[in-house]
Amino acid sequence: MSNFPKKVRIIEEGPREGFQMEKGPIPTARKVELIDALSTTGVRDIVAVSFVNPRAVPGMADAEEVVARSHRQPGVRYSALCLNARGIERAMATDRLDLPGQLNAFASEPFLMRNQNKTFAEMFQEVDSMVQAYKAHGVPVQSLAIGAVFGCNFAGPVKTDSVIDIVRRIIDIVERNGETLELINLADTMAWATPRTIKTTVEAVATAFPGYRLGLHLHDTRGMAIANAYAGLEMGIDQFDACVAGLGGCPFAGHGGAAGNVCTEDLVLLCDEMGIETGIDLERMIECARLAEDIVGRPLPGSVKTGGSLQRLRDGVRMAS
Amino acid sequence: MSNFPKKVRIIEEGPREGFQMEKGPIPTARKVELIDALSTTGVRDIVAVSFVNPRAVPGMADAEEVVARSHRQPGVRYSALCLNARGIERAMATDRLDLPGQLNAFASEPFLMRNQNKTFAEMFQEVDSMVQAYKAHGVPVQSLAIGAVFGCNFAGPVKTDSVIDIVRRIIDIVERNGETLELINLADTMAWATPRTIKTTVEAVATAFPGYRLGLHLHDTRGMAIANAYAGLEMGIDQFDACVAGLGGCPFAGHGGAAGNVCTEDLVLLCDEMGIETGIDLERMIECARLAEDIVGRPLPGSVKTGGSLQRLRDGVRMAS
Repeated sequence: MSNFPKKVRIIEEGPREGFQMEKGPIPTARKVELIDALSTTGVRDIVAVSFVNPRAVPGMADAEEVVARSHRQPGVRYSALCLNARGIERAMATDRLDLPGQLNAFASEPFLMRNQNKTFAEMFQEVDSMVQAYKAHGVPVQSLAIGAVFGCNFAGPVKTDSVIDIVRRIIDIVERNGETLELINLADTMAWATPRTIKTTVEAVATAFPGYRLGLHLHDTRGMAIANAYAGLEMGIDQFDACVAGLGGCPFAGHGGAAGNVCTEDLVLLCDEMGIETGIDLERMIECARLAEDIVGRPLPGSVKTGGSLQRLRDGVRMAS
Repeated sequence: MSNFPKKVRIIEEGPREGFQMEKGPIPTARKVELIDALSTTGVRDIVAVSFVNPRAVPGMADAEEVVARSHRQPGVRYSALCLNARGIERAMATDRLDLPGQLNAFASEPFLMRNQNKTFAEMFQEVDSMVQAYKAHGVPVQSLAIGAVFGCNFAGPVKTDSVIDIVRRIIDIVERNGETLELINLADTMAWATPRTIKTTVEAVATAFPGYRLGLHLHDTRGMAIANAYAGLEMGIDQFDACVAGLGGCPFAGHGGAAGNVCTEDLVLLCDEMGIETGIDLERMIECARLAEDIVGRPLPGSVKTGGSLQRLRDGVRMAS
């Protein structure tokens, strides 16, 4: 059974996911240039930076400056990834971001230890601190991003039951604080998902938590990202994180060279061709992908930026005839 | 409704599709090296070369020598692409190939003109000549590969009705000659397919020609190949052409840089993870992909050769614990 959505919300994560991963320092001005270009594509959500420890992620040390210098367009929500209460304080101090009240967790303790040097117990404490921090700033808690849902390079396969257990515990924490989660974002941090596990996991989580919106955060390390997105669309998923040009990858995931999130413009082409609305102008997003490639100075994995859109070919044939 | 097959047949087209596309000359010995390596992966079908005009495709001028020097393994069928009766004569003269009795056609006349300088009428005449040539050599006619089925860079969208009409005319030619087609291989020569059109086209062709096996030949120019293969699997498709490391692309398709067939090892990972049997050893195919990259001397598009298999990660975690 296919249950395709009529429209999907694409969260552009390129500036955040992409630039945290690059080895060389990227000038602040060029980060701003990409964010400003993305702001003209029709995408309504841009995750501009992350507020994380600059010693662990040096590429994000200029996060405040990037936020201060980018030009906000009406209708676009600019946000940031915050992994703890301290990150929320930094983000709110910029006074220029519209945080989606997102909490973060991981379904694999070995990965959590590598990524944040925390146990599950400490993670739940941090979630509670984040809820307090959001409340202190009047930001409603809205979403939970949970990583390593589909498997972990350090722990192997991850049981959906333990994912559900973690989500349930976090919902309890949120509700004890008088807040309400709306979205559960399932992240395939280390690219273990395949269309089959996308379907079984989405089905199980949707059954366990009826009434919550589900999103997907996909990586293309094994070439499955677009197929996984398609499987998600078949299950009615209508929110996807994506990175222009396929930028990205978590620095702690042990990807070994291949990485990259599902590519925004490839995902937009898929949606366009299926009649699913994204609000994004594909040709403009392709220009952003070429800009991203210019900024990082190496070929990026997305395909449509080289292959071109089908609509452009259709228009070309029509004009020639 | 998903109608997944229990096992799929993967036709390895890398040596043929891949090496016809490369700019620099590739030494015959290295082509043989790849074919011999592929022969140890468990793949049962290898399209080793094409017998085409060496002026048009200089990379295949050494086709006879490649065939003569490669080491045949029992259980592997070695074949070649022949686009006309003359190609069949050359292939049969090697006395070392097991041709699948394949006819070739295109669903777009503008592409046919560019690729072979033929009209549809001339294409049907050539099909008739090919049938005669196969019969003269006692090779049963078995399959029809039809290209540009999903769209054409020079003609735009291609109507499924005209695909069906061409297939019907070719079936008539085959049957007038007392032969019987078994397989219709739908080729997305210029990468216009999306999961939606894979499903609608497969459905329409299967309905028009019940009792025929359908195959897919996919290109990844727009990043859709694995998603398209997945959509094909959902429709019960159990035969796919694929290229190790994502080699390939038709020299006449106007791909402009991006090209490549669906990547064999990425497709094998998809099937492995879905419990669909391919008979191919994924780790060995990954080694072949790295060899292919070494041979062409540039990064090739496949993902799993860099990202690694999930099974290897599972085994690593199990051994560490």
